[in-house]
Amino acid sequence: MSRTVYVNGEYLPEEEATVSVFDRGFLFADAVYEVTTVLDSKLIDFPAHMARLKRSLKELEMGAPCDEAKLLEIHRKLVTANEIGNGLVYLQVSRGVADRDFHYPEPGTKPSLVLFTQSKDPIENELLKTGARVISIEDQRWGRRDIKTVQLLYPSMAKMAAQKAGADDAWFVEDGFVNEGTSNNTWIVTKDNTLVTRNLSTSILHGITRAAALRCAELLQMKVEERPFTIEEAKSASEAFFTSASAFVCPVVEIDGSSIGKGEPGPVTTKLREIYLEESRKAAL
Amino acid sequence: MSRTVYVNGEYLPEEEATVSVFDRGFLFADAVYEVTTVLDSKLIDFPAHMARLKRSLKELEMGAPCDEAKLLEIHRKLVTANEIGNGLVYLQVSRGVADRDFHYPEPGTKPSLVLFTQSKDPIENELLKTGARVISIEDQRWGRRDIKTVQLLYPSMAKMAAQKAGADDAWFVEDGFVNEGTSNNTWIVTKDNTLVTRNLSTSILHGITRAAALRCAELLQMKVEERPFTIEEAKSASEAFFTSASAFVCPVVEIDGSSIGKGEPGPVTTKLREIYLEESRKAAL
Repeated sequence: MSRTVYVNGEYLPEEEATVSVFDRGFLFADAVYEVTTVLDSKLIDFPAHMARLKRSLKELEMGAPCDEAKLLEIHRKLVTANEIGNGLVYLQVSRGVADRDFHYPEPGTKPSLVLFTQSKDPIENELLKTGARVISIEDQRWGRRDIKTVQLLYPSMAKMAAQKAGADDAWFVEDGFVNEGTSNNTWIVTKDNTLVTRNLSTSILHGITRAAALRCAELLQMKVEERPFTIEEAKSASEAFFTSASAFVCPVVEIDGSSIGKGEPGPVTTKLREIYLEESRKAAL
Repeated sequence: MSRTVYVNGEYLPEEEATVSVFDRGFLFADAVYEVTTVLDSKLIDFPAHMARLKRSLKELEMGAPCDEAKLLEIHRKLVTANEIGNGLVYLQVSRGVADRDFHYPEPGTKPSLVLFTQSKDPIENELLKTGARVISIEDQRWGRRDIKTVQLLYPSMAKMAAQKAGADDAWFVEDGFVNEGTSNNTWIVTKDNTLVTRNLSTSILHGITRAAALRCAELLQMKVEERPFTIEEAKSASEAFFTSASAFVCPVVEIDGSSIGKGEPGPVTTKLREIYLEESRKAAL
């Protein structure tokens, strides 16, 4: 079955879902995106994704393609049309179509809007049982990782480097400290049960699931430190995990070949994941 | 008149020139490009552009869409179809179409190939007479600028920052040294008539026109140093200029509000430009 894809006002079979070769998303990576998880056909953390989208657009002085109510409607129509139980909705806004020029196009140029779905079960993810193995890799991305742009070539290269090394993901290291994973925020649990995750800045994505996990940690009355940590500190932690919209809270059991803690998903990670899922389902739209 | 655009084997009116929304060039900026200048309907430095394209593809483990003879044929057909006297041919290769995944698609996935033309007169460029005014800006691009990818959002932002400051372009500065301009390599002429341009590394694009200008400097028996220089050194230089495929050798007369030399295009820049044009026309295809 062909998916239905939304492109600039139309619902199309995926084979017909195209954009102009002059779209600035294609020629300049001048586009931002969001990925919203779908659980039991409901959207997880939708308002937070829309708030971040709005921030990304603002940072890039890019116009909004339509209002949030319309975006919610499109999300829901696609979930229904494509019979998504568990999966995701991908949304991308680009600065629109114009003849190629490093200067932005005329004000008033209509932003392009594309949305599609993927069926992926975030619950029955094999990595949740075994835990992920990661490698560290130098962070060579651009400086504004707080803006969720489609400049994803380096994360994609890092994912392939991880695969070649027999690992599941790569953690970006800069000036000795871990920034984040290829498409997730990174956490450790110290031996005295303190959760540590990097503080927000332009160095990392301001993860929606990261923020939700912080709220969950508060519910669990856990001690949290938002600060940079090194690969060495991570290796000697009692647990490690990452958070992302599509994997929620996912245990990490090995970094650069060194086992973390007992080398299996730990109790803090598991507890946090349970609470996160519970809270997310409650708030799902 | 609508331009003819080449997309994956077809010559199409530009309104119909589209790619899939699942093209990795659109979703991941997983694409490389070249811009070849057209003078008197002939291609300037074509073999060098093709050699760099091959290198970009190799660095990214991306397949070639077709052989060089076919690429030359497409370039020529577009120049003829669009009646390009002076202008350019833009070429983009992406890793092809696949459902969204940070992992590269299956080996054998067909790369996408898009080419289009623009009519622009590189000879009657107003900047050549007045000289360009540039601002300096922090280099926030990714680390592999030697690969000519479409991750051009930051250069585009820098171009807009220059425009807002009433300037023509921005020079990227990193760790105190000038890397290059938004889409060109940067040069100064010291008071003792030595040409200085940054040495090749992953920090800058390996400019085709940069290499050609170095050969011209050799013809002119000029002293050349390939090394980093600072904005301060540039400000106290006797001349400054940039090289790019589309602007050739273009004088720079002001950096961050400070006049360079006499504040007008200098004799070394002018001479180098003349020789470059002469040599390029001889070798045009």
